[in-house]
This record gives sequence, C-alpha cells and structure tokens, in this order.
Amino acid sequence: MARPTPLSGFPELLPQARLVEQHVLDVLREVFELHGFSSIETRAVEPLSVLLRKGEIDKEVYGVRRLQADAGAADGGSGDDLALHFDLTVPFARYVTENAGHLQFPFRRYQVQKVWRGERPQEGRYREFTQADIDVVDRGTLAVHHDADMARVMGEALSRLPLPGVTLQVNNRRLVEGFYRGLGLEGDVLTGSIGATMRAVDKLDKVGARGVAGLLAEAGLTQAQVDGALGLAQVRAGADDLVAAVRDLGVSHELLDQGLEELLAVLTAVDDLPADRVAVVADLSVARGLDYYTGTVYETRMRGWESLGSICSGGRYDSLADDGRDVYPGVGISLGVTRAIIPLLARGAVRASRPTPTAVVVAVADEAHRRDADRVANQLRARGVAVEVSPTAAKFGKQIRFADRRGVPFVWFPGLDAADGHQVKDIRSGEQVPADPASWLPPAADLRPSVVAGDQA
Amino acid sequence: MARPTPLSGFPELLPQARLVEQHVLDVLREVFELHGFSSIETRAVEPLSVLLRKGEIDKEVYGVRRLQADAGAADGGSGDDLALHFDLTVPFARYVTENAGHLQFPFRRYQVQKVWRGERPQEGRYREFTQADIDVVDRGTLAVHHDADMARVMGEALSRLPLPGVTLQVNNRRLVEGFYRGLGLEGDVLTGSIGATMRAVDKLDKVGARGVAGLLAEAGLTQAQVDGALGLAQVRAGADDLVAAVRDLGVSHELLDQGLEELLAVLTAVDDLPADRVAVVADLSVARGLDYYTGTVYETRMRGWESLGSICSGGRYDSLADDGRDVYPGVGISLGVTRAIIPLLARGAVRASRPTPTAVVVAVADEAHRRDADRVANQLRARGVAVEVSPTAAKFGKQIRFADRRGVPFVWFPGLDAADGHQVKDIRSGEQVPADPASWLPPAADLRPSVVAGDQA
Repeated sequence: MARPTPLSGFPELLPQARLVEQHVLDVLREVFELHGFSSIETRAVEPLSVLLRKGEIDKEVYGVRRLQADAGAADGGSGDDLALHFDLTVPFARYVTENAGHLQFPFRRYQVQKVWRGERPQEGRYREFTQADIDVVDRGTLAVHHDADMARVMGEALSRLPLPGVTLQVNNRRLVEGFYRGLGLEGDVLTGSIGATMRAVDKLDKVGARGVAGLLAEAGLTQAQVDGALGLAQVRAGADDLVAAVRDLGVSHELLDQGLEELLAVLTAVDDLPADRVAVVADLSVARGLDYYTGTVYETRMRGWESLGSICSGGRYDSLADDGRDVYPGVGISLGVTRAIIPLLARGAVRASRPTPTAVVVAVADEAHRRDADRVANQLRARGVAVEVSPTAAKFGKQIRFADRRGVPFVWFPGLDAADGHQVKDIRSGEQVPADPASWLPPAADLRPSVVAGDQA
Repeated sequence: MARPTPLSGFPELLPQARLVEQHVLDVLREVFELHGFSSIETRAVEPLSVLLRKGEIDKEVYGVRRLQADAGAADGGSGDDLALHFDLTVPFARYVTENAGHLQFPFRRYQVQKVWRGERPQEGRYREFTQADIDVVDRGTLAVHHDADMARVMGEALSRLPLPGVTLQVNNRRLVEGFYRGLGLEGDVLTGSIGATMRAVDKLDKVGARGVAGLLAEAGLTQAQVDGALGLAQVRAGADDLVAAVRDLGVSHELLDQGLEELLAVLTAVDDLPADRVAVVADLSVARGLDYYTGTVYETRMRGWESLGSICSGGRYDSLADDGRDVYPGVGISLGVTRAIIPLLARGAVRASRPTPTAVVVAVADEAHRRDADRVANQLRARGVAVEVSPTAAKFGKQIRFADRRGVPFVWFPGLDAADGHQVKDIRSGEQVPADPASWLPPAADLRPSVVAGDQA
C-alpha cells in the first residue's frame, strides 16, 4: 500500500498536538462542571428532516446511508434519510423534546463533539471539527440572567485556556430590531427592510461602511435610515457608556429599550472576568447572519488572530425547541475548538512540553530482568507516574536515547540485586542519583506534559 | 414538532447514565496514560478503498457523501468515496503509514472514539458505539513481550471499572495452526482444511461440539482429526497446566511449539492482576472469526453477562500496516465501551450517585441579591466545588425542592449583610449549620457524583 494522503478539511493531530487539544477539552470540562452543567452526547446522525428545520443548510450536509441497505432493516425504522449533524444545537433541541420527561428544568448541559460540514476547506474552516457547547434551556420561559451566565462561564473557560486574549462581543437582536423599527423600517429579522438591513450590516467586515450604505440604499432605505443603521453598527461600548452611546443616536422604541436593558444586564454581570484575558464589549454590528436568535447574540475573536473570524458564538433562542405542547427557550454559546487551536498549533503559538504522557522509562538490563522492570514501573504508577518499560534490553546508552527521542525526562535503572540499589537519571541534566521505587516522585512540573501558549513559552 | 422517536441502534444516554460513561472513559484514560500510551483521534471517515482492504465488510459500512457535491470541491480531492470507520484499527494503520516519519517506534497509542456499523441492532450490538483501543506498533519486528503487556494494561483497566469481574481468554493462532498442521491439515487460517476447521471451531458456542464435529466431517476431516481439533478447542488452562494440557493431545509441530511458548509467556506475565476481578485463562477455542490476526488473540467476557459475547477483543497482526517500504507489526486490544455498559445501565447494575456534577445550589433571596449569590458560588468553585446558583428567587422551600429534585446534596443560604451569616443545609439530613464561603468544603464523598456497581450499591 502506498503512503496515504490526508483528506483536505479533515485534520488529524500528531500525539504532541493532541495533548494540547486534550488539555483544552479538560479545562472546558472542569469549568463547565464547576458551573453545574451536565455532559451529554447525542448520536452523530439525525434524520434529514430534523436538520433541515433550521433553514437552508442542505448544501453543507453530509448524507449517510448503509452501502448495502436491505428492505428488512430500514435505518432505525424511521424510513427517513440520515445525515451527519452540522452543529450541536439542533441535536440538543431534539434531545430535549425527546427526553423532556426525564430532565430537570432549567437544564444546563455541555456537549463536546465532532460536527461535519461539507464546506470548502480553508484555515479556520474544516469539514470535521470539534465544538464545545454550553446551553441552558427551560420550559415556558427562561430568565434573562442566564444570558449573562453563558458569557461568564465561557469567558471563564476562555481565560483559562492557552489561547491569546479574546474579545467577547455581545449584541442583542431586540435592541437592533427595536432601533430599526424606531427608524421606521418594517418586517422582522429575516424579512422586509429590517431583514434586508440585518443582512447588509452583517457584511460590514467584508464590504465596509460604504458598501453597506450602498446595499441599504438599494434596499430602499432613506439617507437618514442608512445613517442611523450604520451609526448603530459602529457602537462599541462597555457597561458604563453603552446607554449614552445608543441614546445619542436619537432613536426610541419600546423593543429597543428592552433589548438595551438586556444587553446592559449581560455587560454588568461579567465584570468579574479577568479583562486582560477576556474583554467583554457591546458590539452593535454583531448580527450572527441568518441564525434564528431572538435576543442576546455573542461572537468572540482572538486578539491578533481576528482573520479567523469568530471562534465562539451563540445567542438566545426564544424557541430552541418545541414539542407541540411546550416551548423550550434556550441560550447558549459554542466554542469552535478545532477552529481556534489548529491555526495556533500550526504557527507554534501553543505547544505541549513533550509528545507523550510518559515521565519515566525503566531500563531493562536483559530480558531475564524484564519482570523486575515491570514491578518497578507498577510501583511508580501506583503513585500516578506515567511509566514505560524499555521495549528492548539494548545497551543502556541506546535505552537512554530511546527516552530522549520521545522527550521522556527520566530513565530508571533497577537494582539487579539487594546490594545493587536503584538509580534514576534526569536525562536533560545528566544527573543520576540513587532512588527508592517505593517513594520517588519526579518534580511536579515533570509529572504530566504541560501546555504553554507561545507567548508564555 | 411532534416528539421525536429514538433511532434504533443509536443509543443516547440521560445525564445520570452519561456520568457512568464518563467515569469509565476517565479510568481508561488514566490507566492507559500511566502505561505511556499517547492519545490520538482519527477522522470519522476513510476512503472506502482503505476500509475495504480488510475484507468483506461492505455490508456493515455507512457511506458518506455531500448532499450537494459539486465538481469543484471533490471530497478531500481524493476522488474516492468516503465511509464512516467501522473500527479504530484500520484508521490507526492508515495513520501510522501516513505519519510514520513523525512517530517514535515502538509507538503506543490509545484511541477512544465512536465507530459505526450498519448491523441489525440488538442488545450489545449497536450501529453507533464507542470503542477504546490500545495498540503498540513497531517498524520491522515487534517483540512478543508486548502481547502480554496489552493483556496486562487492559486487564488493569477492567479491574478498576465498575463492571462485573471478567475472564480474559487468550489463545494463539500459531499454536492452533501448528496443531492443525500436526494433525495433517493443510492451507492457512483462511484457506484449505485449516481455514475450514478454524471457521467451524469458531461456531462452537453456537452449534456445540456435535455441530462442529459435523461441519468438520463435511470439510473432509478424518475422525482422528475431528477429535484432535475438538480436543484442542476444549482446553482451558492457566500458566501452570497449559503445556501439559496441550501435550496430552499428542500432536507435535514446530509452529505449535512457537505458539505454545508465546501463549505461556502471556499467561505468565499477567500474574499481578487481581484474579477476583480479572481472571486470565488460555481458552483454545477462541478464534476471532475472520480477522487477520497472526499470533496472540484475546476475548473477554463479563461474569454473569456471557450472553453479551466478548466485550474486549484483539490480537496481534504481523502486518498491521505496510507502506510499501516498511512493514509495521502490531498488537492491540479493543474494549467495546457502549457494548459493556449500556446493558449494565439498562438493568441497574451500575449507576451514578446523582444526575448532575452540582454539589451545592446557592439560594437567591431576591433578584437584587443574585450577584451576591454569584460571588459565593465563585468562592466555592475556586476550591473545586461544582455550584449552581438558584435559577429563581422563589421561596426557599421551592429552591430546596429544586436542588432535591436533581439530587444536589447541599443548599447554601448567603448572609444578606455582615450581621447575618452564611448557612449551609444538607438536604438529605435536614441539618443546617453556619458556614464560611472562604473555607467550607463538602465531605469528599459528596464533592463529585460517584459511580457504583450494582453489586456494590
């Protein structure tokens, strides 16, 4: 078999890079669980009819079918075509309606899984990638303090990850829609002149203010309306100056007031995040494209890596799920783990200190003494030290080079009899000292591979 | 939307059951890393040509295609059809050949991922399920002590899981093939009278000794050969009596001697496993069907749950991978995590002590004091306590019932001013005591949900 080539858009990590990903996932899990989120996983496939409910996404979807399907074994008996999920929100909504009778509401869940999209691959865009989502969903209504909570929990997680500092940009669709109504526009977030304005402003990054102005004029807005919409989209503010910045634009509407209050509540409640790691700002240009958010929306950019776009996005759905009897409003935020870390790994901005969990290689003097080496290894493992026994009984110099090549810091030389004691060598310094397998521990910094951001390295 | 129905063969867990699965995966990871295995993940899809190399498995495979594929964006540029992987061995072999220049050999890796098979669903058989694999692969040759190592590492992991005790059954294909050659049979493990005999003996569980004898007679074996093959398949032995049990059958062949020596080495090297949890025996009926193993083979059955079949299987491939220049022999073993735990969960033989990570709910006297509750929660979280703040400022009785319904053991009542101190209530005993948010910790047993096997519950 010839050497296979990678599939574009389906990234795979070498062991040392995988250690970085594992560290990121460990931190996320720890923070999410400290905040009372339960882990769930949903199956990788959904009936196509479930996936298509969200809108026009069929271009991006991977269909799945048994290559030798037979009539007697329809796929799950649903008679429906299956496809790989393209996010974790749609499957979560389906899970909630399917299991509502077994869940306690408000239900806080985190979900870390791969998703698949048939998009054209490019940096920061993959066909298979890992997302880490938190959402809270309630039955009937969901209090607005949860909107702040999602930003705070994900902000805390981001602050503890080996990433550059981030800016978490928050907006509120009610604020924007209310402002547009105050300008005299009509429709809703998807239709009419309001919908057209939302779509045009969403292109601000790509086409600039002049380009957006042109699109808005084409959509029939007056110059005053164009100026108002662009003025709102240019507002960047914190909790202190948000209200003044919006009021200065001279537009008023009841829905605007409600949205402004909700947005201010989010900004006010996140003041305990470390601002050097996670700055939370109101950015009134954030629109989240065609997604069906109804209130708070979030985007997140890594400082110095803005070209990757938003690595962590979400918002509030007043109807995340609906089982025909109850409605389930939700709010959540999703971190694109692969999207954030693969570019950092590729440019050396984050790395693991060694490629293997192993802290110690136990040398084997000859094959007759391999069981003795195994026993030493088990003594060390019982205290949490990751140990490999040398795969060969080659000369000790060769066994040391084996450890060195894989970045293992210590080599252990078992005593061959009672008179001949154990010794351990730090192969970085060359220092070799007597050691007791019943009590020796490596320095804490060497016990596990550590993960360091490039600017801390 | 009507309530959706589950897809048969695609199991999903409720949060309390998911905690059991997480615990199992945590233990596996810990044991594998203590033994120096590196984590990798491979993409979910492989080119169909890679999957089909292993043999006649196309009936079980799920094909994957972009629903709106266009000529300008072929799948990964390979021009090849894609399918979901059905195990982790074939993708690992592909990963090794693709990345051989970046790996240190012998390379020890663990891999815990979902796999997909289009089989008819039944208990212990799923269409989507999680496997946990360990393998070691080398370039050129791989020493036989690794065969014992795989059994020992997986045995240690199994001994620490909340499963019933298991029997790890080991056999050796060289032993069996050599024995059959000594009987005068011909061909190899897949062809001729040796292949026919292997396939017939593999059915011993289903058709019994008389059924196998019939199949062997049909295949043209003499009565002496039938008796010999059945005699071998009935051998169950430990390190002490294996050699005598095989020699008593009166057959000799060089390949038999080699296989017997290898099998004895495995049995001898696992004597440090706790026998009450993991009994390791030679079972000379274990054949592993049509898999291309060349030496050691493993199967594992849970005591009292034998009807589930083997939950943990594997073996040695003298050519796990081959990149046209080098050959990569490997040995490994794969635990069917879903297969082992879903039946146990379904019958209550294992459970988590509560459905959520949360140990404490902080009560909210009124919405004006929510930020105070948030601060208490953060103080507790800083010491590793999982905390939720009450979602409502309802009457305290209702907030206590909220905690009780989700199995949270403690409710915290923040002091409303300096004179009014904090209190914490254990809602199981009803005991309520003053507590300091800067130092209080729950009893260690309540800090995290625990997982208990039914027979220990």
